[in-house]
Amino acid sequence: MPEIQLSGSGHGWIERWCLSKIVKAFGGAPFEVRLWDGTRLTLSDEPPVAVIEVRDRAALVALVLRPELGFGEGFAAGRIEVQGDLVGLMEAINRAWEKAYPPSARRHLDRGRQGASTATSRNNVHRHYDLGNSFYRLWLDEAMVYTCAYYEHADMTLEAAQHAKLDYVCRKMRLSPGDRVVEAGCGWGALALHMAKHYGVSVRAYNISQEQLAYAREQAARAGLADRVTFLDADYREITDPCDVFVSVGMLEHVGSHHYAALGTVLERVLHPAHGRGLLHFIGRNHRRPFSAWAERHIFPGAYAPVLSEVFTEVFEPHNLSVLDVENLRLHYVRTCADWLARFERRLPDVRALFDEKFVRMWRLYLASSQAAFSTGDLQLFQVVFGVAADNTLPRTRHHQAARDVGRVM
Amino acid sequence: MPEIQLSGSGHGWIERWCLSKIVKAFGGAPFEVRLWDGTRLTLSDEPPVAVIEVRDRAALVALVLRPELGFGEGFAAGRIEVQGDLVGLMEAINRAWEKAYPPSARRHLDRGRQGASTATSRNNVHRHYDLGNSFYRLWLDEAMVYTCAYYEHADMTLEAAQHAKLDYVCRKMRLSPGDRVVEAGCGWGALALHMAKHYGVSVRAYNISQEQLAYAREQAARAGLADRVTFLDADYREITDPCDVFVSVGMLEHVGSHHYAALGTVLERVLHPAHGRGLLHFIGRNHRRPFSAWAERHIFPGAYAPVLSEVFTEVFEPHNLSVLDVENLRLHYVRTCADWLARFERRLPDVRALFDEKFVRMWRLYLASSQAAFSTGDLQLFQVVFGVAADNTLPRTRHHQAARDVGRVM
Repeated sequence: MPEIQLSGSGHGWIERWCLSKIVKAFGGAPFEVRLWDGTRLTLSDEPPVAVIEVRDRAALVALVLRPELGFGEGFAAGRIEVQGDLVGLMEAINRAWEKAYPPSARRHLDRGRQGASTATSRNNVHRHYDLGNSFYRLWLDEAMVYTCAYYEHADMTLEAAQHAKLDYVCRKMRLSPGDRVVEAGCGWGALALHMAKHYGVSVRAYNISQEQLAYAREQAARAGLADRVTFLDADYREITDPCDVFVSVGMLEHVGSHHYAALGTVLERVLHPAHGRGLLHFIGRNHRRPFSAWAERHIFPGAYAPVLSEVFTEVFEPHNLSVLDVENLRLHYVRTCADWLARFERRLPDVRALFDEKFVRMWRLYLASSQAAFSTGDLQLFQVVFGVAADNTLPRTRHHQAARDVGRVM
Repeated sequence: MPEIQLSGSGHGWIERWCLSKIVKAFGGAPFEVRLWDGTRLTLSDEPPVAVIEVRDRAALVALVLRPELGFGEGFAAGRIEVQGDLVGLMEAINRAWEKAYPPSARRHLDRGRQGASTATSRNNVHRHYDLGNSFYRLWLDEAMVYTCAYYEHADMTLEAAQHAKLDYVCRKMRLSPGDRVVEAGCGWGALALHMAKHYGVSVRAYNISQEQLAYAREQAARAGLADRVTFLDADYREITDPCDVFVSVGMLEHVGSHHYAALGTVLERVLHPAHGRGLLHFIGRNHRRPFSAWAERHIFPGAYAPVLSEVFTEVFEPHNLSVLDVENLRLHYVRTCADWLARFERRLPDVRALFDEKFVRMWRLYLASSQAAFSTGDLQLFQVVFGVAADNTLPRTRHHQAARDVGRVM
């Protein structure tokens, strides 16, 4: 580690203590810290990717005492500013953190199991997904897909990559005309509509976000698919419809590990016993860790990103469900977040017409830190295909996943 | 369930008690039981796939008291005979067992964690793999691959499917010329030689079976690959060679869950920190269960087929390794076992020249019951690709898995 460079006017013991803590946690990381009085702390002799400007003493103390919350809240309030590459800074912070706290060293940091009741889930979902369709329309793709896209070819736009993701999910699940599909947590309905339109299946799609449901129903009517796609206002735990296929894209993050067993019970209840199959698509991790304290408080209340073993143990193993296929799409989420962030920045005037500056800064940090979490391997994106154990009608290979025209009726 | 048909001469309370136990466990299953005195027990009104002939009272009692051991040992000794479809019978037994003891009902049946020390491992491996290369040569493919094949196309022979498997594994691991590969548990060396010959990598391949090592070294010399493939007589725990790629095909079943953490430590020690990656190929299950008591005693001492979550928790999570890809090749093992069994039966005269009738019957049952275990979903075959978390040079898609000519130098 290079020598720590500290320069600037005189400062008291609080500042010195705070800076020593920053050196301890982030010594060697390629960024600088500057205080309100001009004091500069250089942590590395690499060229810095960014400078963190801390504008008052209280922000500095908060940053040191509770790093995630202190940084996020200080940044949102404009008491911490970042000059330079925000994503690069968050990557540098993640890498330093990973080095200081490898999995073996942080078992004690694990939070207990958690989860949200039906009522809490409704409130959690409301706080994020009901921010207004007009807001999400500013920076999501045209189909309003708010989960990891699939950039199958290098030059794909976000629009093309979201369409590719929807279709890839359908192919992985081997949809056939007439299949009964249940979707848990259907967002603005893009996947449900894609499945019905292109694969001739009937869909019962569940959500507890009122804004999303209203939008999805309107889209179904407009596309003439209302007879084959039903959007229902109910929690995943309330699902009782027998089905051939169960799919959930981007919901497990909101379920909480405490309730994975309940999700398994739903699968046991609804899946066809001879050929039932499904897909879970979710943000996960390589080792158990709480969700970012800042994001959990300000962006996604109740969120938790599990390791695969938690999901397998609670959801699949008690019900003799076979794991058929797992794909890690982490790098696709790096690019999805980058695309979202770029669109968000391009539509800033429109965002500012809807929300105040604190919200703008909060969402900028949320999108940038999400991109950084995927690019540093702090977060993963798993697609898991599963099926009932006894099904011998499975395809032998994955060739069907690439075949674009199999099973498509339109 | 149909009425139980019981016919035949008079019999005492022991027989009646045994038959009532069989009815309780297997009522409804499509097979019949016949006793030495002509008594017939029909369990189902479906046409029976097979008849189990029990030739003396002691065999009947053993069958009822310890079903797996009693059936296997009775069959091997010829005191239990099967008329009809042996594989179909084992499937019927598996299905009835699964119905009587779903995962939720048999947590109490779980055996504790287990594993073999280095010395025990040597003995376990010796008992199975050192039966003689001349025996295995009778019914394995020409490359002597004793793990699940990959029948990528429906009409493939065992030879073609084993070759396809070796190459598929290489493509999944993204081998590049010059890569240093470590193989743990290399069998007769087919994969090590394939990797070196077709992908230009250097391989250090480990095994503790003397017969296999001798054969593998001879093959390497014959193929002119001895400079790039080194076969080493050492346990997986002794591996210290830094490598780009770590592969193990069909070894984990012999490690025992107690030692998965040791395997994780090996990965941490040897894998390149920036781009290290690998593949584990192993027989697993959907839920925790001991290995078949009969197979564990007579065929594979120390064997254990894990659930994915056991492997992930112990091998990957403590070392921040990312699960990149999982494929379940269960149906391929059904066909592999069927091919092995058919070849074994065709070469019976040669097998009988090497071993006694008890051995022949034991191996017939082992191959048939393995096929049945895969076809009923009692066993799974997992291929897991993993890599260090920080590697962003990963391919974005699985397209490389299908591309036959990428990275091949010969």
